[in-house]
Amino acid sequence: MTEGAPRVVIVGGGFAGLAAAKALRKTPAQIILIDRTNHHLFQALLYQVAIAALTPGQIASPIRGILQNQKNVTVILGEVTGVDENRRYVFLDTPERKAVPIPYDYLILATGVTHSYFGHDEYQQFAPGLKSLVDAVAIRNKILLAFEQAEAEEDPGRRRDLLTFVLVGAGPTGVEMAGALAVLVRTTLKPQFRRIDPVSARIILVDMASRVLGSFSEDLSEAATRRLQKLGVEVRLGKPVDQIDKDGVIIAGERIASKVVIWTAGVAPSAAGKWLNAETDRAGRVRVREDLTVPSHPEILVVGDTMSLDRDGAPLPGVAQVAIQQGRYAGRLIHARIAGSSTPAPFRYFDKGNMAIVGKGFAILESGRLRLSGFLAFFIWVGVHVLSLAQSGMRLSVFFQWLWGYLTAQRGSQVIVDHCAFKGGDDTGPARGTATSIKAPEENSSPD
Amino acid sequence: MTEGAPRVVIVGGGFAGLAAAKALRKTPAQIILIDRTNHHLFQALLYQVAIAALTPGQIASPIRGILQNQKNVTVILGEVTGVDENRRYVFLDTPERKAVPIPYDYLILATGVTHSYFGHDEYQQFAPGLKSLVDAVAIRNKILLAFEQAEAEEDPGRRRDLLTFVLVGAGPTGVEMAGALAVLVRTTLKPQFRRIDPVSARIILVDMASRVLGSFSEDLSEAATRRLQKLGVEVRLGKPVDQIDKDGVIIAGERIASKVVIWTAGVAPSAAGKWLNAETDRAGRVRVREDLTVPSHPEILVVGDTMSLDRDGAPLPGVAQVAIQQGRYAGRLIHARIAGSSTPAPFRYFDKGNMAIVGKGFAILESGRLRLSGFLAFFIWVGVHVLSLAQSGMRLSVFFQWLWGYLTAQRGSQVIVDHCAFKGGDDTGPARGTATSIKAPEENSSPD
Repeated sequence: MTEGAPRVVIVGGGFAGLAAAKALRKTPAQIILIDRTNHHLFQALLYQVAIAALTPGQIASPIRGILQNQKNVTVILGEVTGVDENRRYVFLDTPERKAVPIPYDYLILATGVTHSYFGHDEYQQFAPGLKSLVDAVAIRNKILLAFEQAEAEEDPGRRRDLLTFVLVGAGPTGVEMAGALAVLVRTTLKPQFRRIDPVSARIILVDMASRVLGSFSEDLSEAATRRLQKLGVEVRLGKPVDQIDKDGVIIAGERIASKVVIWTAGVAPSAAGKWLNAETDRAGRVRVREDLTVPSHPEILVVGDTMSLDRDGAPLPGVAQVAIQQGRYAGRLIHARIAGSSTPAPFRYFDKGNMAIVGKGFAILESGRLRLSGFLAFFIWVGVHVLSLAQSGMRLSVFFQWLWGYLTAQRGSQVIVDHCAFKGGDDTGPARGTATSIKAPEENSSPD
Repeated sequence: MTEGAPRVVIVGGGFAGLAAAKALRKTPAQIILIDRTNHHLFQALLYQVAIAALTPGQIASPIRGILQNQKNVTVILGEVTGVDENRRYVFLDTPERKAVPIPYDYLILATGVTHSYFGHDEYQQFAPGLKSLVDAVAIRNKILLAFEQAEAEEDPGRRRDLLTFVLVGAGPTGVEMAGALAVLVRTTLKPQFRRIDPVSARIILVDMASRVLGSFSEDLSEAATRRLQKLGVEVRLGKPVDQIDKDGVIIAGERIASKVVIWTAGVAPSAAGKWLNAETDRAGRVRVREDLTVPSHPEILVVGDTMSLDRDGAPLPGVAQVAIQQGRYAGRLIHARIAGSSTPAPFRYFDKGNMAIVGKGFAILESGRLRLSGFLAFFIWVGVHVLSLAQSGMRLSVFFQWLWGYLTAQRGSQVIVDHCAFKGGDDTGPARGTATSIKAPEENSSPD
């Protein structure tokens, strides 16, 4: 590489950022890719970690490993906290230093989204969302621990509360999670307990919307609802969540006691708009031009979930395919500018379609005029997701894990690991146990 | 099962406790197995999680899953905090309640060991040990983060300190970890960095003893040392560790600056001896009779690492084989008492041999008069460890992960997941970055 080659800074190692870096592989540039974590995460499979089917290592690949053969990329672990768009710096916090200015000639912001609690940030402590490996492991711990506590619990009321799970938000994550949780209790957990029947667990899926999976056609949305109900999931639509607290939720005025509430209802874009002082849409996403650049800053591109661009009057959806195609486009545009070749035509999104899995052996799929539901769609879902994993070793690993789980109901990662502290007891009161509080197992055990 | 069947409480779901439960599978008894975690852990493979080769889920199996078909066992998640050996209760803390008395007719204590810092508990915060999944993930984070920080670091002195790893204790864990760490830097990490050369990392293995792996014969111990040295590990024997603090260690008066120090030097038994007020050996392990019962309490058996029993004048070693054989014996003894059949002859340990892996494709093995070192021993090591995994699904998974890692240097779990908090920066000082502190990559990048 030539000394003084132009410097491209990419912020974010998700689908968009990685696609941009790869599209620059032959570009005579110094590329710096910055991410807060050391891994690229396949977010659509996060809920599989939360329901103990996959391990964190199976859906997360080290960014350095993915890009190790692309010698023009340097990967830096750290958090970007701002941009000086006039002097062309991003400001970086690393584990060792704060606000280090990193100069750029071209900047690609691919900083994604985070949870949104619609103004109720106090819900977060009671109803965690599902955006990172930390979230997924914390939710896995919560779910598995609820069954453990129920098994040791004598009071039927407390037992019932422990076995009530509420999922707020009936989009893809909420629906896939609800279905997977229903399968978890029916297959893996059922034979493992003696005093409780895991199948008695209530799984409630709630949304303000009038149907699940609003991005699909109505008939597929109905097929998914029927499938969920067949699995025992209570689907409550058109109902607002009035309150979430440590005792559970209030849905349309009715209190439901629950120890495990999971939030999949909303997302908010990253702070990229604030860093740039740029025009944003109502959700806070940066409005970009048709070549994904920011107005008046042709050297800054914003791509993926944190950008806003209309297609046929509606904004592009926040899905992996948009992120990948935009990342690739951004890389190509910058390559053309650096190489002095002709810049590509305005960005156009090619919609490959949409899929969601509901429970075991059932999925829905929509692509162009094709609509599918059932086992074939499930089969395609598995294939597409296995092939989309970033690291080749993980493809085999995940495929065999799913196959094994499908056949035996054994989970890949049914472990409770409280990384911060395991305390044998909470602080809510004195010991309430009595000599008889752990009863003999035969009283509730199911027959062989 | 008959009402009022005798109640057997087993504390600990390690090798000893699980073997005991399984040996009672046909016994008309109510068996309660209590563990602090929900999983059985293959401790000998913990260091594989610490060096990112395996995921936690691959070496930990849910105890409930292992015993799900044994209907006379109830598994309880909780921590035993004491025993009333006269009224025959153990006291249990669960996530919800404290000091719940659990009655027993027979008690098997299989509570294992923890780290010992030989009176220097203050070392723990600087030099974590390797006994649980939490430990292993914390050490993995520390190791991977040190390389990340070194890549972002300009100061050569700080860079060198970040890339200095000290392992205290040259027993099996220390030796296997040192070898595996040397392989990690040489295979997986080498192509992933641009500014540092991971191979320049110093790996120092230190022990007071005059040779590594003291439980093996001298020639095998020498073979292991030579192999370690070939891998670039500095082996420092016969040297005391004078001090461990946040800046590193002092070994025989010499200070070595290091950000990652790992402690594998000593273990201390569980509190079982204190709970029982029983006679213990110097290390604190409960002295048991030849049938593994506690003197004057024939209904209490202590098995595995936390018991002390001499064979031919020397105490039985704290290894998995002793634990498994004793657990099985304890189960059989109690079965015979309950069934009224003749009790088994005194416990005798059958020593199958001893193995350790050093780096990649090399192990040492000793069994009876057989002594092996090299690839064949490595091959046997892999076979034995794969077959010893508790959950059948994990056998395939671990085998393919190892094979894949051996062939491609890809790791199964090269992720940094700070479950407690990721803060972009520590609190030791103000921002020290300058605009030039992240230099262009080509200056230090290695040639293609």
